[in-house]
Amino acid sequence: MTLYKLILAYDGTEFRGFQRLAGGRRTVQAELERVLRRMGWTEPSIRAAGRTDAGVHARGQVVSFDLEWRRPTERLKQALNAALPDDVAVVAVETAPEGFHPRFSASRRRYRYTLRLAPDRDPLRDRYEWRVWPPPDTAGLNELAGQVVGRRDFGAFGRSPSGTANTVRQVFHSAWEAGPDGEREFVIEADAFLYHMVRRLVGAMIQVSRGRRSPEEFLASVEDPRRRWQGGLAPARGLCLEAVRYDGNEGIEGSC
Amino acid sequence: MTLYKLILAYDGTEFRGFQRLAGGRRTVQAELERVLRRMGWTEPSIRAAGRTDAGVHARGQVVSFDLEWRRPTERLKQALNAALPDDVAVVAVETAPEGFHPRFSASRRRYRYTLRLAPDRDPLRDRYEWRVWPPPDTAGLNELAGQVVGRRDFGAFGRSPSGTANTVRQVFHSAWEAGPDGEREFVIEADAFLYHMVRRLVGAMIQVSRGRRSPEEFLASVEDPRRRWQGGLAPARGLCLEAVRYDGNEGIEGSC
Repeated sequence: MTLYKLILAYDGTEFRGFQRLAGGRRTVQAELERVLRRMGWTEPSIRAAGRTDAGVHARGQVVSFDLEWRRPTERLKQALNAALPDDVAVVAVETAPEGFHPRFSASRRRYRYTLRLAPDRDPLRDRYEWRVWPPPDTAGLNELAGQVVGRRDFGAFGRSPSGTANTVRQVFHSAWEAGPDGEREFVIEADAFLYHMVRRLVGAMIQVSRGRRSPEEFLASVEDPRRRWQGGLAPARGLCLEAVRYDGNEGIEGSC
Repeated sequence: MTLYKLILAYDGTEFRGFQRLAGGRRTVQAELERVLRRMGWTEPSIRAAGRTDAGVHARGQVVSFDLEWRRPTERLKQALNAALPDDVAVVAVETAPEGFHPRFSASRRRYRYTLRLAPDRDPLRDRYEWRVWPPPDTAGLNELAGQVVGRRDFGAFGRSPSGTANTVRQVFHSAWEAGPDGEREFVIEADAFLYHMVRRLVGAMIQVSRGRRSPEEFLASVEDPRRRWQGGLAPARGLCLEAVRYDGNEGIEGSC
């Protein structure tokens, strides 16, 4: 039996999120486990770095499981990709060190949120972007993003996904970038994230840029977890789990 | 009653092609006509520049119809976009000159076919690209593409969509370009196209680049319509109807 680590990419549009759900609803975990079972995998559950929501995409989701596989590791990747549906693919497979856990061993996660600044719908892009019009002020967005960096209690922007009360997270990087076709992309890297944290931060920054809330209110919520940010959850489709890093830079990079 | 001209964009993945079909199968034409009927449109059929196949995308499909619409033209676009499904959108609306017909008045059409050169599936791109690996020789592809330019009988690469025997077409432009993320994009502009012509040309060029057929065979088929090119139809997903031009450059440009 060998411990394997996979990097997964998926288009989240047609999934009810990553995590397996009751009632046979379509999730990434269920699709992968179904394929692994046919290959002789017998554990009750795979482990994953993060539970992405319904509609959220990934290029760098990390998953681990124990499997008896006698052929080369590269052949495991090919076999999985041949059996998985079109909207999930294995980007890389490697054997993992003993004790590796995709969630507990992770030191950093990076998400990317993509805005498309345009007045009209675009059926060839809308699956992966949030359309915003009129365009927000770039300098203003960058100033807000910069305030998020640091070790803080982010309780105003989400709750802990593990159900514990700990909402302190360390944000290493938080900035807006220009995308290749004029998009505005929010890139954020942290040790871990709260439930809905990225989408709520993006929604909040857009609310401020539209003048519906003030920059002072945003800063107050960044500094005080009791000042819960109401509303302003950006749509799932713009979000992508880009990469997960482990000590020793084990995380394989992708880009959305 | 006013004659309107629309530019349409659509993601062809979930459509059985542009043209309305019996049996209620999902087509772009049927979706647009359903919405127009609710706005009081009464003609038996809209007119369109081209009938794209199942799975083929568009950024520059042109459609016309007569409609009684008392509000500003821009409001017609908004009303259509609010009612159309997510995978079809109106890019532009304008009133058309008397006698305008999207197919018969068109002087040029431009298609773009996108290859992604990569060893693995990519769920976030595969809807719009054909994955080819190992990478074909770029110089070889360009040489083949250049041979297609000119007024020729392309009968070896497709049949006439109108059912007539005329398979002579004038190709103004035929070349490979580098895409923003390392893609290879085949751009072809002609007065009109035969059924499956672009997909068969792309498939043929890839067959030659893989050494399965010779460049001489390709050239022979370009020069002699009786030398029908067998097999090698590139997948629909990589193809996009980019723009249709009319005398006086009425065609509005898009890019896939």
